[in-house]
Amino acid sequence: MTRSPQQFASDNYAGVCPEAWSAMAMANEGSATAYGDDAWTEKAANSFRSLFERDCEVFFVFNGTAANSLALAALCQSFHSVICTASAHVETDECGAPEFFSNGSKLLTAPASESKLTPELIKALATSRSDIHFPKPSAVTITQPTETGIVYSCEEIQSIAAQCRELGLKLHMDGSRFAHACASLAVTPAELSWKAGVDVLCFGGTKNGMAVGEAVIFFDKALAADFDYRCKQAGQLASKMRFLSAPWVGLLESGAWLRNAQHGNACATRLAEGVKSVPGIELLFRVEANSVFLQAAKPILDRLRERGWRFYTFIGGGARFMFAWDADPQRVDQLIADIHEVARF
Amino acid sequence: MTRSPQQFASDNYAGVCPEAWSAMAMANEGSATAYGDDAWTEKAANSFRSLFERDCEVFFVFNGTAANSLALAALCQSFHSVICTASAHVETDECGAPEFFSNGSKLLTAPASESKLTPELIKALATSRSDIHFPKPSAVTITQPTETGIVYSCEEIQSIAAQCRELGLKLHMDGSRFAHACASLAVTPAELSWKAGVDVLCFGGTKNGMAVGEAVIFFDKALAADFDYRCKQAGQLASKMRFLSAPWVGLLESGAWLRNAQHGNACATRLAEGVKSVPGIELLFRVEANSVFLQAAKPILDRLRERGWRFYTFIGGGARFMFAWDADPQRVDQLIADIHEVARF
Amino acid sequence: MTRSPQQFASDNYAGVCPEAWSAMAMANEGSATAYGDDAWTEKAANSFRSLFERDCEVFFVFNGTAANSLALAALCQSFHSVICTASAHVETDECGAPEFFSNGSKLLTAPASESKLTPELIKALATSRSDIHFPKPSAVTITQPTETGIVYSCEEIQSIAAQCRELGLKLHMDGSRFAHACASLAVTPAELSWKAGVDVLCFGGTKNGMAVGEAVIFFDKALAADFDYRCKQAGQLASKMRFLSAPWVGLLESGAWLRNAQHGNACATRLAEGVKSVPGIELLFRVEANSVFLQAAKPILDRLRERGWRFYTFIGGGARFMFAWDADPQRVDQLIADIHEVARF
Amino acid sequence: MTRSPQQFASDNYAGVCPEAWSAMAMANEGSATAYGDDAWTEKAANSFRSLFERDCEVFFVFNGTAANSLALAALCQSFHSVICTASAHVETDECGAPEFFSNGSKLLTAPASESKLTPELIKALATSRSDIHFPKPSAVTITQPTETGIVYSCEEIQSIAAQCRELGLKLHMDGSRFAHACASLAVTPAELSWKAGVDVLCFGGTKNGMAVGEAVIFFDKALAADFDYRCKQAGQLASKMRFLSAPWVGLLESGAWLRNAQHGNACATRLAEGVKSVPGIELLFRVEANSVFLQAAKPILDRLRERGWRFYTFIGGGARFMFAWDADPQRVDQLIADIHEVARF
Repeated sequence: MTRSPQQFASDNYAGVCPEAWSAMAMANEGSATAYGDDAWTEKAANSFRSLFERDCEVFFVFNGTAANSLALAALCQSFHSVICTASAHVETDECGAPEFFSNGSKLLTAPASESKLTPELIKALATSRSDIHFPKPSAVTITQPTETGIVYSCEEIQSIAAQCRELGLKLHMDGSRFAHACASLAVTPAELSWKAGVDVLCFGGTKNGMAVGEAVIFFDKALAADFDYRCKQAGQLASKMRFLSAPWVGLLESGAWLRNAQHGNACATRLAEGVKSVPGIELLFRVEANSVFLQAAKPILDRLRERGWRFYTFIGGGARFMFAWDADPQRVDQLIADIHEVARF
Repeated sequence: MTRSPQQFASDNYAGVCPEAWSAMAMANEGSATAYGDDAWTEKAANSFRSLFERDCEVFFVFNGTAANSLALAALCQSFHSVICTASAHVETDECGAPEFFSNGSKLLTAPASESKLTPELIKALATSRSDIHFPKPSAVTITQPTETGIVYSCEEIQSIAAQCRELGLKLHMDGSRFAHACASLAVTPAELSWKAGVDVLCFGGTKNGMAVGEAVIFFDKALAADFDYRCKQAGQLASKMRFLSAPWVGLLESGAWLRNAQHGNACATRLAEGVKSVPGIELLFRVEANSVFLQAAKPILDRLRERGWRFYTFIGGGARFMFAWDADPQRVDQLIADIHEVARF
Repeated sequence: MTRSPQQFASDNYAGVCPEAWSAMAMANEGSATAYGDDAWTEKAANSFRSLFERDCEVFFVFNGTAANSLALAALCQSFHSVICTASAHVETDECGAPEFFSNGSKLLTAPASESKLTPELIKALATSRSDIHFPKPSAVTITQPTETGIVYSCEEIQSIAAQCRELGLKLHMDGSRFAHACASLAVTPAELSWKAGVDVLCFGGTKNGMAVGEAVIFFDKALAADFDYRCKQAGQLASKMRFLSAPWVGLLESGAWLRNAQHGNACATRLAEGVKSVPGIELLFRVEANSVFLQAAKPILDRLRERGWRFYTFIGGGARFMFAWDADPQRVDQLIADIHEVARF
Repeated sequence: MTRSPQQFASDNYAGVCPEAWSAMAMANEGSATAYGDDAWTEKAANSFRSLFERDCEVFFVFNGTAANSLALAALCQSFHSVICTASAHVETDECGAPEFFSNGSKLLTAPASESKLTPELIKALATSRSDIHFPKPSAVTITQPTETGIVYSCEEIQSIAAQCRELGLKLHMDGSRFAHACASLAVTPAELSWKAGVDVLCFGGTKNGMAVGEAVIFFDKALAADFDYRCKQAGQLASKMRFLSAPWVGLLESGAWLRNAQHGNACATRLAEGVKSVPGIELLFRVEANSVFLQAAKPILDRLRERGWRFYTFIGGGARFMFAWDADPQRVDQLIADIHEVARF
């Protein structure tokens, strides 16, 4: 098929990075036991344990919808609730998956600036009701980086986790771009997760260069009780598991997990820097990870589309650009140049 | 990692066949729109429409558990029931997935010889109760080939479908090895599915040479209403969909889907033929697809294990062997030779 | 047990009205077939058909949580959504029941003044998203009267229903106090329901003078397909059904259903009229049914409590009073007098 | 309505016994706080604590379907399973309610003689599979008396409970006719429940003389965590709770709970004794509680029907008769006489 010029509408548009591909290719040699009882899966789980400097429970599932929903379902009963921001991906873009997997757990949403939760917002939501006519809060989920590309600092997470413990809530992190947060803050995965108080992390593989697959990591192993059954029942146990796990070995052992994220972040910064002086173009949010949200008048965005660029737009005129491991800096520069031109009229 | 000798305990032990791999590799060039809005996915769906000689609705999901459970959920409400055999995979090996995806649809199981349903068994189960204290039958599911490796003929399916229509039931086919049934009967996919009266088919990709992925094919398009939402909510929508769909293009356009199945079937026949004269060894079921169930005394099976062979055993002393696209005939011959030797004592 | 003075914190505090009680007592004579196959249940269903001047499907369930949740589940699949106001009882006081019964249908909430939905709000919510990452709207639910005691006019419902039809949405009415709305507007049940375009109505019995029980009425009989199975599976089929149905006969045939509601409404008006001139006391909402929301400074409400009055308070200092069929006008006058006094300081 | 002659097809045909009715009437005086925060509900819970000689958690729900399903859901996750007999009411007559309330827990059924589970049957089922492709057993449910009217002795329950503890399973008792078992064995409720190792008991009110209502009793209070939320979400929290709880006070304080059961049992024995010598009539099961299963040729049963008797029939020609608190001994004698006559041909 003919290749069209690269687009930055989503970091899901990228393919598989060489390190992940090469591990898949190696895993494809010969036969292997099914359902995760194979050497690649063991190796991948151990790679995560090394990366996180901790003996944790690691599960490999197909996608982020399932990873987050299964993890939250493990923290809740159907009559419990989960605290998140109003712009959380689980609330706005999972088609009710958290409610489906949990059989009814309600999401309690906080109106959060920059999509970030705070201890205050959590406390306000968690204590707003205490009668049985309202689902009892059981967990908090934060997205790292947020849906607007902002990163929680270790300190922010620590204070959220402290609030959670005080309220008896478990802390889940939707880390579909967790690597980008690590890259952004230049901290270790351990520092940004369990050392800061996270109980369960969903570590995104797809946006980090894999074809398919996410890892669900329970730092509190007791919370992972029977989670393998939960995955199986929910259609998230791969028979040829090695093809979900081997790419992780490729990513983690080579360091590509971090390099890929650094590259995406750098391209976002490149775009932000390149357009910051353009009249009529504003950054909607600080650029801290691999996404850039540009505010511009509709005619400007229309002209950008006419030049062939694809992007999602948001209420108020924002255009989102996201950069994956494969983002071509020259193509980013083309985008910058085009933005300069279309804004000129 | 070191490669161990090939085993035939499961056809899930095989890797990705060259045709599927090569399509994945091609799909990996450049970027593509996410969530199925890409050229590979369109091409794969059209390949299925050509293969089945019919305009049908095609969905790509991650695994067989999800494919079957989602399809059945689309045919049922929670208070309905699904008729199957007592040995159906959905009943015995899905950890309650059909009940989970449907929020409670009960499986009504028929004690079926050779794991085959018949119009009589269906009618008996469907009409055994008609009060509201028992879930109302809404669908029938048959596995083709059955869990024991037996194949339903087109005529058998036609008579089952006629019974279903008479009773107002929809007919679902669990075709995790559908290709093997086509190969076994030398009939077209159309003849063995919608032409015989099947409403929904789950066509297995994993056991046919893919890394991951199954296709859910609705011949009655009305039954597919909003099925895309159902997949999304249930965590079965791949963001980088092309990696689920491109391998189908590779399999279908090259004819590998059929060749792979023919090879698996041939190896099963090779084993069956090779051991049929061995005293103390009996075939538990006719060999019509890619599996062989051998009945043998425990010491014989123990000795076989001592020689390094892995296989599942069943109540009564059965040992199952299954052959994938990659089964090495020489290795099959080794197995035959070893069976001859261990049975000799 | 000693009787405490009557309270107006909730219309659930009332007992069973004489007409309902007497019907229960009559139903208690002799034995009757179980599970609704009895003369009282048939009579009650027919009484509803007469009342609504239409052949409709009528089901008797235990409470409002179940009535509304089951009705909505019949209008939705798990990946669909239901449009309601942010203050709808199904959203704020059912502990996630709609999500539970439907296995995940999300409630989409509109910020509605006076808790009323409008065609514009419905259209805005229903058309805000059309991608599969967001649950597809399938139904609208309105509460009549609203949670703030305001009544939708027939014309308002008609315009909502017209919008629903245009968008392909079903219209459900949570009528836990439907009788009070009929009384308030002096219109017939038919005019206020199916003639205005309502597809399914949950008609409240408990707040109308019964011990337990609500009626789910499908004006579009096709929507009621297998609803009896749905009720049974969800634990909402009474074995001794006559005790749920006979009280309806008592209420409907005697006209008590309307008189009870008129009385409650009149007491609310009595209170509102009695306190409207009191300085420091404001009505939060127009009084159109049987509830009164009073805005007052905290010290005033505290003093009211000290005098023994019980009531719920809301954000901003509102106190809610609700009047049932048994509200004693003299006791209402005591409340009025006490409000005058506590407001005086 | 005209009263037809009493039938013994079901003990659900009976109305409310005087003691329960009188308590309801008393509860109907004056107003009371809603949702169980009333004096009658407290009193009823305490009556149960006295009756069971133990501080336990008591919840009042609407019917047996919900009581059993909610209790089992509290003992299971969706990917767990529940062990019961093939003839258990939860398996055969709840329309998939246990699967619905638990979001998919599978019932594993043992083929049990006289509908009784044994430690051996439990162990065989619980240990038959231990892989994640099959739902992990989490609870056992026994019906006391069984669906065939047989009673588990305290010793039998103790041995079942011991087996459960060994296997890490919780023990639930479906006691829709628990009172009849106590009456049959002349043991205390404590002896027949927690002292024998039962963790959760559903104590039937409807079949014991109430209009509506069952009690769920957790002897292990930890298992009742958030069960009030579970009831609310599942539509099982009565707003006018006193009408569910007061009848229990009437039944328990007066001793009617036991007398009613004794009467039902005595009538069953009366019938069994009265027909035991009739040629062509056989007892299908020992008569130990309030039901009698008669085996007779079809013409005999047809003639019995022609004489106006109603009863359920079972595969193999069994006719079931059940006796409630209101069974008229003279009417039982009529039945006996009629059986003698119809069997004479």
